Amino acid sequence: MIISGLLTSVAINFALCIIFFTLYSILRKQPGNYKVYAPRLLAAGKARRPRHFHFNRLLPTAGWIKNAWLPSEDDLLSYSGLDAVVFMRIITFSLKVFCIAGFIGIFILIPVNCSGNQLHDMDYINISNNSLEVFSISNVNNGSDSLWIHLGAVYFVTIVVCCLLYKEYKYIASKRIDYFCSSKPQPHQFTILVSNIPVRKGNTVRNSVENFFTENHPATYLSTVVVHRKSKVWTITNAVENLFSKIKNFRRVPNRHQYMHLDHLEQKLNEMEGSVRIDKSREEVRAAFVSFKSRYGAAIAINMLQGNNPTQWLTEQAPEPQDVYWPFFSSTFMGRWISKLTVIFSCAFVTIVFLIPVFIVQGLTNLAQLETYFPSLKNILTMKIVSQVITGYLPNLILQVSLKIVPPIMKGISSQQGYISVSEIERSACHKVIWFTVWNVFFANVLSASAFSLLFILLEFKDIPSKLAVSVPAQASFFIAYVVTTGWTSTSSELFRVIPFVASLICKPCNRKKNEFTVPSFRYHQDIPKILFFGLLGFAYFFLAPLIIPFLLGYFCLAYIIYRNQLLNVYAPRYESAGKFWPVVHDSTIFSLVLMQFIAFGIFTLKKLPHATSATLPLPIITLLFNEYCRKRFLPIFMAYSTETLLKKDKADQYYPDMPQFLEQISAAYQDPALAPMVYSASSDNLREPLIPTAQVRG
Amino acid sequence: MIISGLLTSVAINFALCIIFFTLYSILRKQPGNYKVYAPRLLAAGKARRPRHFHFNRLLPTAGWIKNAWLPSEDDLLSYSGLDAVVFMRIITFSLKVFCIAGFIGIFILIPVNCSGNQLHDMDYINISNNSLEVFSISNVNNGSDSLWIHLGAVYFVTIVVCCLLYKEYKYIASKRIDYFCSSKPQPHQFTILVSNIPVRKGNTVRNSVENFFTENHPATYLSTVVVHRKSKVWTITNAVENLFSKIKNFRRVPNRHQYMHLDHLEQKLNEMEGSVRIDKSREEVRAAFVSFKSRYGAAIAINMLQGNNPTQWLTEQAPEPQDVYWPFFSSTFMGRWISKLTVIFSCAFVTIVFLIPVFIVQGLTNLAQLETYFPSLKNILTMKIVSQVITGYLPNLILQVSLKIVPPIMKGISSQQGYISVSEIERSACHKVIWFTVWNVFFANVLSASAFSLLFILLEFKDIPSKLAVSVPAQASFFIAYVVTTGWTSTSSELFRVIPFVASLICKPCNRKKNEFTVPSFRYHQDIPKILFFGLLGFAYFFLAPLIIPFLLGYFCLAYIIYRNQLLNVYAPRYESAGKFWPVVHDSTIFSLVLMQFIAFGIFTLKKLPHATSATLPLPIITLLFNEYCRKRFLPIFMAYSTETLLKKDKADQYYPDMPQFLEQISAAYQDPALAPMVYSASSDNLREPLIPTAQVRG
Repeated sequence: MIISGLLTSVAINFALCIIFFTLYSILRKQPGNYKVYAPRLLAAGKARRPRHFHFNRLLPTAGWIKNAWLPSEDDLLSYSGLDAVVFMRIITFSLKVFCIAGFIGIFILIPVNCSGNQLHDMDYINISNNSLEVFSISNVNNGSDSLWIHLGAVYFVTIVVCCLLYKEYKYIASKRIDYFCSSKPQPHQFTILVSNIPVRKGNTVRNSVENFFTENHPATYLSTVVVHRKSKVWTITNAVENLFSKIKNFRRVPNRHQYMHLDHLEQKLNEMEGSVRIDKSREEVRAAFVSFKSRYGAAIAINMLQGNNPTQWLTEQAPEPQDVYWPFFSSTFMGRWISKLTVIFSCAFVTIVFLIPVFIVQGLTNLAQLETYFPSLKNILTMKIVSQVITGYLPNLILQVSLKIVPPIMKGISSQQGYISVSEIERSACHKVIWFTVWNVFFANVLSASAFSLLFILLEFKDIPSKLAVSVPAQASFFIAYVVTTGWTSTSSELFRVIPFVASLICKPCNRKKNEFTVPSFRYHQDIPKILFFGLLGFAYFFLAPLIIPFLLGYFCLAYIIYRNQLLNVYAPRYESAGKFWPVVHDSTIFSLVLMQFIAFGIFTLKKLPHATSATLPLPIITLLFNEYCRKRFLPIFMAYSTETLLKKDKADQYYPDMPQFLEQISAAYQDPALAPMVYSASSDNLREPLIPTAQVRG
Repeated sequence: MIISGLLTSVAINFALCIIFFTLYSILRKQPGNYKVYAPRLLAAGKARRPRHFHFNRLLPTAGWIKNAWLPSEDDLLSYSGLDAVVFMRIITFSLKVFCIAGFIGIFILIPVNCSGNQLHDMDYINISNNSLEVFSISNVNNGSDSLWIHLGAVYFVTIVVCCLLYKEYKYIASKRIDYFCSSKPQPHQFTILVSNIPVRKGNTVRNSVENFFTENHPATYLSTVVVHRKSKVWTITNAVENLFSKIKNFRRVPNRHQYMHLDHLEQKLNEMEGSVRIDKSREEVRAAFVSFKSRYGAAIAINMLQGNNPTQWLTEQAPEPQDVYWPFFSSTFMGRWISKLTVIFSCAFVTIVFLIPVFIVQGLTNLAQLETYFPSLKNILTMKIVSQVITGYLPNLILQVSLKIVPPIMKGISSQQGYISVSEIERSACHKVIWFTVWNVFFANVLSASAFSLLFILLEFKDIPSKLAVSVPAQASFFIAYVVTTGWTSTSSELFRVIPFVASLICKPCNRKKNEFTVPSFRYHQDIPKILFFGLLGFAYFFLAPLIIPFLLGYFCLAYIIYRNQLLNVYAPRYESAGKFWPVVHDSTIFSLVLMQFIAFGIFTLKKLPHATSATLPLPIITLLFNEYCRKRFLPIFMAYSTETLLKKDKADQYYPDMPQFLEQISAAYQDPALAPMVYSASSDNLREPLIPTAQVRG
């Protein structure tokens, strides 16, 4: 990419950001847009329509920034939950790391880089078109001792990041325990999901579960809710509902012929109801929510092998009631397994398909190549402004749009993997999106410059560092543009909420119910990978081309204010995983560190400084050992609570006055919403009631 | 290797076997050799010196074979434990598999192989020297359709082995549960080992443990035994003992001057005793055996995360008291970790060092090469008998001797890995020896023919099948000789117990205490890898060169009788892991299967039958999925007992009359034998007692 292209990109995006900010600060004050910009406040009754019109409403103001800045972490915790706090801490962690790395980069490495003259010696490089490279490591002379400063910087940043990671992991782990200790009794703390329940002939699932748990957990067992297969019952339910509305219509317009028909229909309804009842016993899935009298009792049932056949009586922590993903209860052991295998193949397929836009992007950044493919475009392409837009802005726009659709796709794939809660699905999708981004944005972009066959490159393992060392610095300006486009603009558009805003504009005329709106939930699987990927870019480039860091810092500052604002005004937490996203963040930061060290290894080999090359070797080993230690030290805390904590909490509950009432209501919390009993025909009153199946408490 | 060399080897080894059998059947009847050939019977008082001399004693008889054959599996179970049964089942499993594979190999594949004429077409191969190859797959014509029969055989054997493996895993898992259910209450079932105990300042380890468990497991906690560091206390103990014997000597020869000296010494003794007492409180290691009132209580403490810091309060099942490996209680979390890393490096080092004898062996099998290196040996080497011994017998002898010392080395390495029981050490050593054997005997021998640099071969992953396809059939006769030498002879020498026999001969004249002898324990880590390796050879060769199977079957029959005999007469079980060796066997059989499939893949590529090549591809995938299923289905049973089983057993114990007494004695079982309190000076009576520290029951 040529430098003017980069500048064009920065200019366009800066302008877009300003526009978004201005528009937002005006539009958010219009009561008609409260649904878009403050649905959460509206739902809480905090956003009220002003009585009088102020001219102030039409001026852009920055008051919202202050409002987003002011609340403390504890306020955020009590308002949006621990997951939101963890999310914000990813941003502050990145800010801390890149302030330090940026300081080293700008004030130490850039002067060193500029003092070299490797690029001047190589006459065949057109300096004017690559002037950014003067600030990069490429300009340091081969074999120069000043490369030791770069090595020192890599060591220093590795150590700083490890210390910060350790501190952060420890902090979030303690927050997680505190959060649990200060939480009110919640149904999911007392409940487990049992799957693959063995049922003897002539016995029901409910009986099997009750027998098993009253025998093996007599002191703590409380109640059981058996899960039902949705699809078939749904079909019948829908049929009944259709029939029901037909009858209703008939009653409204009574005439003799139709009354006869009505009798026939009511008979049919009775039959169907019978079949629903029979079907319910038949359609019990071999899974059940089992509740216990204490958290410790539930934890014991989760951690111990229950039956002598380890594929039966599988136990896991129940998700929060509102977090349960009802459509997918693949109850058999083999079913879950097969769906897992299918998911792996789907992911591979999606990854390969998405290489196509990446290669288009690569083609655009190499205009010369494009000209050879499409000679007819030559006249247009040689226009300066066109070439600048094409090389600077267009590639990133294509990438950005194609990447926008990846998180929903990955979530769709994850939902087929047999997870029983939305939070698990989003966590799994988060993993998938991270690796997809690293693979398809970073590696595909970096390496396709040298070869199109990515897989074959990665098979030749020992050549990777040197290949990265050649290609990564060459893509510095591309990724600066990426930070500016995808980082700045897409974050500002997150503030502006382009799609919901446009949707509300379109729906306004045709929407009759004015007070209907939904409070969206935060899409962690979309935004966490984005932030982590910018972190990866920062690590990969901070010692190669430190010029990227200021742009990154700008992004993180933007993200800090904007996401805080959105968490406070727009999104309501749908579930609370109590910080379970942090291990994902930790792992991918470690990956970024090791990638940085590999690139350093390759660079020092390339720059002919063998001693520095061997001096980098201990770094990945130390980093991975550190990671291993953290896995053992902190990860178990994110998997389960300790005996100590559980017992303390259970003891504290003895003094909680509503406890008996709470225990009675637990099983009602896990009622499958699609499966509440329907009694339409029994009394004719029902026919006038709205068509909402009422939930009954079972067990 | 030339065919006459192979015949020589078979002849020598057959003769050796006959000699060993004859000698054994005579020597075992001499009362002087009871210590060597029936120490277990002797210890049980079942082997009595005959009153009169019978001439029969000097004749070889085969009565012992009948005695070894007759006992049923249940007899063996009650006499030698479940581990011995599992060991014998490895042999019977191999016998079953190779009877089927041998039938296919001999009656289907050999006729097919012989009908080909690939080798006749290639004039440059000297048939007379390679006549064994006529029976092997090398003789089948390239592209011949009869290779599909080989593919069918590979499929058939894979399916048969998977079925047998599943059946066997299921059988042993059920045996394991039965064994547990029928066992008497044993201390280790009620006890856990807690390590990395956090201790506050001014508190002892004992207090910390007692506080923690009385608070968190009030209903089930029973008692605590804190572990002490051995080395330093041992030093002081030895010093006290020395001093004590000095005083004793002085008292025997009383005179005035010495009495004064004696006073001085007694004063010193008092001081030292004080220091031992102080030292004991200081030398508490942060590990303790904690006992519970029920098995279920202990299991809960093992499976649950105890403290909020997952590196503290680590819990694991306690080993049987006699199985505890006292010298190594690396109590810190980091200590265990570092020792694990060290062990990995030591293993790699040992593996590399042992490549040297392998290459010597390779040199010997290629005599021509040896002649070029040492021209002066030419005259000797051209003598027929010398060349036959050198190519046929010597290489295997070298391998056998060098492999003999590997199991003890691996056990030594494993003992530094932080395991706290001998059984775990031996199981870990078993793993190490298996991989060592596969690597250094199979791969090194097979591949060194084509290249010395093994590592580089394995880095080029995709070439492995074709390389194996070329080199594995070429080594068929070498491995037949290996089966005959290492298999037949070393198993017969196991019967004859060469080293203990020679040792007893040497010791007899200088051994005063005639009745002293030790009952050895079975070295599972030495014999299981041997059997598994022969299994691997069988799988690798059954469709390449089926001629190896009869030799293998001979070996397994020998092994069946001999090991049964030894388990009944010689070895006493030192510990009972209740079948925990079986998962090792399962995994390595799966490895052998996949290796066979890889070789098949390579062979079909080499033989230019592309459809057959692609038809082998599903095989490893199916096999690995099968393995994954078995891991989930059976492995957890070998890790822990289920709630169901534990509660059933605990309930049954309520009717066991000695239960209260048993619970009282549990903590005494885990007394560190080196650490019993010493009170020598308190009463002068003690001075006349023998110097055996008496064990006191604590806690």
